Amino acid sequence: MQAFAIDFQNDLTKLMRWRRDVRRFRTDPVDAATITHCLDAFSLAPSVGLSEPWRVLKVESPTARAAALDNFKSANMQALAGYSGEKAKLYSGLKLTGMEDAPVQLAVFCDDQTAQGANLGAATMPETRRYSVVGAITLFWLTARARGLGVGWVSILDPARLARDLDAPEGWSLVAYLCVGWPQENTDTPELETAGWQTRARHLVIESR
Amino acid sequence: MQAFAIDFQNDLTKLMRWRRDVRRFRTDPVDAATITHCLDAFSLAPSVGLSEPWRVLKVESPTARAAALDNFKSANMQALAGYSGEKAKLYSGLKLTGMEDAPVQLAVFCDDQTAQGANLGAATMPETRRYSVVGAITLFWLTARARGLGVGWVSILDPARLARDLDAPEGWSLVAYLCVGWPQENTDTPELETAGWQTRARHLVIESR
Repeated sequence: MQAFAIDFQNDLTKLMRWRRDVRRFRTDPVDAATITHCLDAFSLAPSVGLSEPWRVLKVESPTARAAALDNFKSANMQALAGYSGEKAKLYSGLKLTGMEDAPVQLAVFCDDQTAQGANLGAATMPETRRYSVVGAITLFWLTARARGLGVGWVSILDPARLARDLDAPEGWSLVAYLCVGWPQENTDTPELETAGWQTRARHLVIESR
Repeated sequence: MQAFAIDFQNDLTKLMRWRRDVRRFRTDPVDAATITHCLDAFSLAPSVGLSEPWRVLKVESPTARAAALDNFKSANMQALAGYSGEKAKLYSGLKLTGMEDAPVQLAVFCDDQTAQGANLGAATMPETRRYSVVGAITLFWLTARARGLGVGWVSILDPARLARDLDAPEGWSLVAYLCVGWPQENTDTPELETAGWQTRARHLVIESR
């Protein structure tokens, strides 16, 4: 297993280009086998000390969904209060979550207290455990997109409140709230760019030392 | 652009399976165009508010390399002091960095103070800026592996000291130190598993709420 074929390399770049943050979902369900297959990608992610600290809560009950949506609404109202003038007007018109429609919703946590891995690699940078969870989410996202599924990452939330509302075990901290489902449309342009909030710079700052 | 072909989906899973943390590199150089191509993947990553907060320093000079290696050695000695008995013996025998051999070494930072994105999505969870950098690293890693390149993430470091030693701009925080090069061997098994430090659990904790 050396390099992968050129065609695959090109398609991989294409996948990354078409992987977007989706906030507009169709409401039809996603079959359980497809979701399970995508979740399997978590276990292929790198993790510090092989700690595999990712933990997933499927947010399914009406009570849990309502708590999460209410959390978003509060955080979003607070965020809006941080802008003024044209920027506030623009912000209030943005669609920043698919929580009202997405058929599958996942709260992804990091178990900061896991004994697995015996703390290897995490002594000076304990945040690498959470970074491991982010890597796993990225693999999940690509796997889902390869199947045509859309994923949207909601971060406008009070993470401690969500953990409490979802009765997350002690020591778990929220890394991401993911909305998953079939997208209403496919695009290679971020919605924040289309909406005029922010243009991609696309240049990577690289300096030598 | 709907779903990708089944063959691609299968190869993507294979890529994730063969993406390993590499610590044993051949010393022959990697051509600049290949590295540039892999770095281009950063710009395809999702970022909170489209903030694109990733910043990369190529660690190239003998002085910078020596500072980074010395940083690792200090942190690793401290980490070793945290283990005793058999675990200490096992730890001291592990190869945890490829910094002595890897031809390309990158210090990857997050610009926590970037104005890009106007803080959208990062008010309640500012850590999502760093998480954006981790997503970009993950895309870089997959792109590199697809070309047969190995990547190793070193986290046994004092991040503040490294930022100082590399003269990183104010407000940048270290997310990862990456070693990149042609791997001495390819495997689908983590070195920590082979070395007997930690077995992968591979089961994903999933509960419903």
